Amino acid sequence: MNSPLDQLISLFAKLPGLGPRSARRAVLHLIRHREKLLAPLIASLTYTDGSIRTCSICGNLDTSDPCPICSDAKRDPSQICVVEEIADLWAIERSRTFRGRYHVLGGTLSALDGRGPDQLNIESLVSRARAPEIREVILATNATVEGQTTAHYISDRLSDCEVHISRLAHGIPMGGELDYLDDGTLGAAFKARLPV
Amino acid sequence: MNSPLDQLISLFAKLPGLGPRSARRAVLHLIRHREKLLAPLIASLTYTDGSIRTCSICGNLDTSDPCPICSDAKRDPSQICVVEEIADLWAIERSRTFRGRYHVLGGTLSALDGRGPDQLNIESLVSRARAPEIREVILATNATVEGQTTAHYISDRLSDCEVHISRLAHGIPMGGELDYLDDGTLGAAFKARLPV
Repeated sequence: MNSPLDQLISLFAKLPGLGPRSARRAVLHLIRHREKLLAPLIASLTYTDGSIRTCSICGNLDTSDPCPICSDAKRDPSQICVVEEIADLWAIERSRTFRGRYHVLGGTLSALDGRGPDQLNIESLVSRARAPEIREVILATNATVEGQTTAHYISDRLSDCEVHISRLAHGIPMGGELDYLDDGTLGAAFKARLPV
Repeated sequence: MNSPLDQLISLFAKLPGLGPRSARRAVLHLIRHREKLLAPLIASLTYTDGSIRTCSICGNLDTSDPCPICSDAKRDPSQICVVEEIADLWAIERSRTFRGRYHVLGGTLSALDGRGPDQLNIESLVSRARAPEIREVILATNATVEGQTTAHYISDRLSDCEVHISRLAHGIPMGGELDYLDDGTLGAAFKARLPV
């Protein structure tokens, strides 16, 4: 094995979900498809590096700042959906269920990893929530211990703002089978049962 | 989601082992680590695209042609190890057990996929094997039906060359447990049993 390829493989191996073996396969695949894959990938990475910036309002990534979601006049300016990461924002956008705006925290509070409120975009959320047009803040953090702790902390911080604070519903996922669900989800679905 | 990032994600999703979800995670990870990962990756891909070529003797990839293995005077010029893919060559190099030279076929014969002898680097292997210094050709194709068919075809083609033709041993993998082995491997290991 030679050093430029080694170096490229070790860079690929640093990406999440790729190990040394899958990095080698990816690099060989790229070299085997130079015209169709390697050249476009270089162009796309270079363009991304030069053009993508973080939205100064919500923390989304885009070529423009404010991002298209924050500057879209058709979206409801009275709702802010708070998510942990940009990937969560993208997931909600794919579901096409929410037409308000977002706020990306950049992670969760975590005593273990030493992440306190100062490491997250919480101050900017509190000042956004004080604006008179905001009527609802939806806490869409993950249903994990850290995610729920963070949501709890944020709802405390927003208690003096005149906004309605909500969270996503817990329950049986669509297509889920009762026998395969964990007790916590099943319990939450029972407690939150609805009249038919 | 916006189009330059979409385009980058769809390129990543074309790599083996990555789907849309892991491609999104990889792209977000790259943007989050611009200095340490994105910039070096662009530089390394650009350098690879400009400098890596296929060795005209063995089919390996390197910045030089002939590759360092083919031009290394310390390696045994009398042995050629025949492998399906460059990844197999790299795997054998990592094991540090072979000090001869290689020949990369570029795949296997496959009636299903319509790959005949003309699509593989077999002619060049036959002419290499006719050189007077070659004494042994080791067929290190995979232990699959296609790999073994290809090895069989190559040993037929080399029958009029004055070379010793060998193949890798079949048997129990190191650390393997009998209870978990398939019948074929266990049978091969029994047939090839050795005196203690």
